[in-house]
Amino acid sequence: MGIADEPTVDLSRPEQAEETPLAYQAAGVDRNRVAGTKEQIFQLARTTFTGGVIGDIGAFGSLFKVQGYLDPILVSHTDGVGTKLRVAALLDSFDTVGEDLVHHCVNDILTCGAHPLFFLDYIASGKLAPDRISSIVEGMVRACLRINCALIGGETAEMPGVYMGGDIELVGFVVGAVEQDKVLTGGDVALGDVLLGIPSSGLHTNGYSLVRQIFSIDEKPNTLKEFYPDLEMTLGEALLIPHRCYYPLLNPVLGSIKAMAHITGGGLIENIPRVLPPGLGASIKTQSWENPPLFRIIQDKGKVSTYEMHRVFNMGVGMVLMVANENVALVQSKIPESWILGEVVAVTNGCRVSLN
Amino acid sequence: MGIADEPTVDLSRPEQAEETPLAYQAAGVDRNRVAGTKEQIFQLARTTFTGGVIGDIGAFGSLFKVQGYLDPILVSHTDGVGTKLRVAALLDSFDTVGEDLVHHCVNDILTCGAHPLFFLDYIASGKLAPDRISSIVEGMVRACLRINCALIGGETAEMPGVYMGGDIELVGFVVGAVEQDKVLTGGDVALGDVLLGIPSSGLHTNGYSLVRQIFSIDEKPNTLKEFYPDLEMTLGEALLIPHRCYYPLLNPVLGSIKAMAHITGGGLIENIPRVLPPGLGASIKTQSWENPPLFRIIQDKGKVSTYEMHRVFNMGVGMVLMVANENVALVQSKIPESWILGEVVAVTNGCRVSLN
Repeated sequence: MGIADEPTVDLSRPEQAEETPLAYQAAGVDRNRVAGTKEQIFQLARTTFTGGVIGDIGAFGSLFKVQGYLDPILVSHTDGVGTKLRVAALLDSFDTVGEDLVHHCVNDILTCGAHPLFFLDYIASGKLAPDRISSIVEGMVRACLRINCALIGGETAEMPGVYMGGDIELVGFVVGAVEQDKVLTGGDVALGDVLLGIPSSGLHTNGYSLVRQIFSIDEKPNTLKEFYPDLEMTLGEALLIPHRCYYPLLNPVLGSIKAMAHITGGGLIENIPRVLPPGLGASIKTQSWENPPLFRIIQDKGKVSTYEMHRVFNMGVGMVLMVANENVALVQSKIPESWILGEVVAVTNGCRVSLN
Repeated sequence: MGIADEPTVDLSRPEQAEETPLAYQAAGVDRNRVAGTKEQIFQLARTTFTGGVIGDIGAFGSLFKVQGYLDPILVSHTDGVGTKLRVAALLDSFDTVGEDLVHHCVNDILTCGAHPLFFLDYIASGKLAPDRISSIVEGMVRACLRINCALIGGETAEMPGVYMGGDIELVGFVVGAVEQDKVLTGGDVALGDVLLGIPSSGLHTNGYSLVRQIFSIDEKPNTLKEFYPDLEMTLGEALLIPHRCYYPLLNPVLGSIKAMAHITGGGLIENIPRVLPPGLGASIKTQSWENPPLFRIIQDKGKVSTYEMHRVFNMGVGMVLMVANENVALVQSKIPESWILGEVVAVTNGCRVSLN
């Protein structure tokens, strides 16, 4: 082996082994910078630790003890924030994508009735920029603190050559819990149940590839700086509005609803059927709400069909709740911003969601 | 709103809304292709379902019930496979990276004594190539089936403009469990404990950025086709040998060891201290094993210092077990391929790992 001729040299001390440059650093991976960034992340993450967390962050595995449940079902989800990251990179504004990531994942498990327990993240880029990573993690920490979710682990990867320029990939994993008898499966959704809509805050985290194309954002990043009177802000500011977290709002009414759909990629058309029993569909009254200006601006600029708009974007509806008639008044009293979006109907002509 | 003038048209049926092309498809995201690929993945994933899985795959959240534990601690980890993916892309060989991903994650939680329960994956690329995605998922499924781990969820994302050409990002997330009184924390590791080494199968998933640079792989991909007599295979074949999964091997001896370190990025030098109590270090006998030919070839070609080699690569050691003297014979009898790699010593001069 290579070091057999120097058996007593303490090779773990770098100052004794400088006969060649630190090759990995030259190859684009600086392990010292990576280590420094990790310690920053650990300090931020520790502020989110809840009673369930065991030990520290930074071990090979992250330990968590589920407490306070009689018969818990774990509910997990993984997701990214799509090419909203590209918009963030062009504006060098990574303050909010961490919130996007946590909120997107937490909303997804919320549809099963789950309460978030812990979160892990994966951040990759060609070269770790400590400021950007810190901004992202600070966003995740803010989001986690608000909902009592512990950020217990993660990975930061430098992948030179795979990620070019300022591009960053960001992936989240959440695990939550719900009592077995309180899982929202949608199995009891019935004909005539009411669909309540809850407003979105913007595009959330879907449709960004289309928006980037329509506004030629990659080619003309300055487009993002353009002010739109209808938006009362620039396009870039509107596109980076964080994905809303529905957990604090909907947690108090989980016992009064049968199912819910998180309106992500695929819009109302693809997401509502995910929680409807076979044979049932949704009739949506599109006149029951006004599409926020951002969607109208996108549709006009891109000459996108209304069908396609509804298949790509949330169109102003972030969550749809399926509620029995007798519970509608109660749920609406607790969530004044909700409105009757439509109702559960029988499927006709194979069409599961009709926009009327 | 945009469709108020056509309130009775069923906009959810695309044949009625073809006045503009399907814009999202033109922007590089084909939701039909994505949907088809997802159904393929679901079918593969269902073959891994264990008794703990509740419901189907494809819901917003993935449901799992932990069974058979009195006082379970959840152990989770997330990781990628680094730029090993670039080598896979250059060779258009994605058969094994799925195994790499599962094995890497499972080994990490194994260091805490955890048994894998379920796994989620995130696959992103500029344009989803169904064949490549299928190869990756088949690899994950093979790996999960061997260790009774359920692949219960995941995300496939098309991110045109972020991932160029054939590049793919692959991130995994595993949750396992261990009885609270059987967690391996390393807290009881003591002076004089023995370090047992377990062979790696190759580079596992670390050091690929350096290898790519040393062999100019990105510029001259044909280098990967070069046959090396010492390796008895081509460089590319050697680089794609899957990360070993240590769970089946080590599960039977978990009760006889105090701690273990998974030798990933940072090599023996950075990973062993992660499980040693403060004040304790490791003395490694580098003559106790022979570095496999691949590491010698990399070191010679790149003129890399031995210190740097040990800080980037596993150098032939995939796992290090910390074992009390009285248990060494028992553990070695059950794992004949293990060898005495060194011992736990007091830290001197701030150096936690010395290679002697």
